[in-house]
Amino acid sequence: MPQKPDVLVPFCPVIILVKPQMGENIGAAARAMLNFGLRELRLVEPRDGWPNPSADDMSAGALERMGGAAVFSCLADAVADLHTVYATTARRRDMVKPVFTPHSAARDIQSRTQAGQKTGIVFGGERAGLDNEDIALCQNIITVPVNPEFSSLNLGQAVLLLAYEWMQAGLDAQALPSLDYGKSTPATQEILEGFFGRLEAELDAGGFFRTQEVRPTTARNIRAMFARAELSDQEVSTLHGILTALRKS
Amino acid sequence: MPQKPDVLVPFCPVIILVKPQMGENIGAAARAMLNFGLRELRLVEPRDGWPNPSADDMSAGALERMGGAAVFSCLADAVADLHTVYATTARRRDMVKPVFTPHSAARDIQSRTQAGQKTGIVFGGERAGLDNEDIALCQNIITVPVNPEFSSLNLGQAVLLLAYEWMQAGLDAQALPSLDYGKSTPATQEILEGFFGRLEAELDAGGFFRTQEVRPTTARNIRAMFARAELSDQEVSTLHGILTALRKS
Repeated sequence: MPQKPDVLVPFCPVIILVKPQMGENIGAAARAMLNFGLRELRLVEPRDGWPNPSADDMSAGALERMGGAAVFSCLADAVADLHTVYATTARRRDMVKPVFTPHSAARDIQSRTQAGQKTGIVFGGERAGLDNEDIALCQNIITVPVNPEFSSLNLGQAVLLLAYEWMQAGLDAQALPSLDYGKSTPATQEILEGFFGRLEAELDAGGFFRTQEVRPTTARNIRAMFARAELSDQEVSTLHGILTALRKS
Repeated sequence: MPQKPDVLVPFCPVIILVKPQMGENIGAAARAMLNFGLRELRLVEPRDGWPNPSADDMSAGALERMGGAAVFSCLADAVADLHTVYATTARRRDMVKPVFTPHSAARDIQSRTQAGQKTGIVFGGERAGLDNEDIALCQNIITVPVNPEFSSLNLGQAVLLLAYEWMQAGLDAQALPSLDYGKSTPATQEILEGFFGRLEAELDAGGFFRTQEVRPTTARNIRAMFARAELSDQEVSTLHGILTALRKS
């Protein structure tokens, strides 16, 4: 199946599952990968052989769209063409290697990718995780911070978090929330002033301000409240409609 | 079961699942929550009733350790005691509300939590997601950026990502500036509902809604606009005063 070029993700880290047991978890990993734009899956000694119908079912079409998975007989072969490899592990190891969080690893991978490196993230099997020989083949370690009193991340979820962080690192330009105004546009100060002026006149007429002394402070507080809403021009029209209706109610 | 005090997470956002269908997904959500230190789960109209053995099985003990889940008959009741609520949705909506990523939402939630606010994150059911009425009850929207060519996140995975980001934000130490409410406190959803209910009644009396067909949409847009202002209880009192004055003007 020819691979469509994908503008978002020109190069991706390879995901490598070492001795995965359940086909369902391989499928869930593939699905999580493609959800976040990762496309290259490698398997080292999958317990139930390959291909695996349970993996296909669970992948919801992801395996087929990724062009399947490549199978290797040992991790050394599976990482032979890569420049930098990260081992995911929960336990502390007696090896001096940089330890990343998924977040910091994703940033490291993005910058290596942009420098033309090919990277991989290695996950151990469901029960045993990675053994020390496997970890020795990786330059770096990734540990997901979890609740120490309840850590039960499964293989598919661990792949999901790494794939997610990888895509976020690529998108990071827009970190802050933005208001989605849809078809309307933010109201200008002039339009807002028009509304405030009318509102205050109506409030004066209705005897809202108890004394002239409190009037400026109260009026400012009302403005502050509406200003925080970052109104669109459409919404200011709605507010004008509301004023008209309330006078008739 | 007495809840152990947890140093990491003194206050947590509440996770609210609206009309969840599969018990397995509720269990997976609970497990993902506790993996990252969240402990308060609320359900609105779970399809198969509650408690649900499939949910217990899939939660791997998380539901029991969290003290179960509370069940509500509508979302308004489930969020009544919360100050700020986030709706997770994939589709674009025609409501002007801040749109967060999981990452930026988690930071927003952490800073509100530190300011004493109680927050919630709302997830729709597996098939339909949240409807517009539900989203109108939420001040903010969270959208998970996924591969537009393959987006198949399930409920458990969506909860996992939000819970994960929430814990990361807490570990991140860098709190964002939060709104300074001075001596007053943020209005709860219940107080806001009281105001919206009165406003809509007065608008009905004033003939504001041209037709009964446009009424729900227009009412939602009005709520969205006030919700964005993040009103204090003091300000809601001011708005009640404004309504009273306008009727007399």
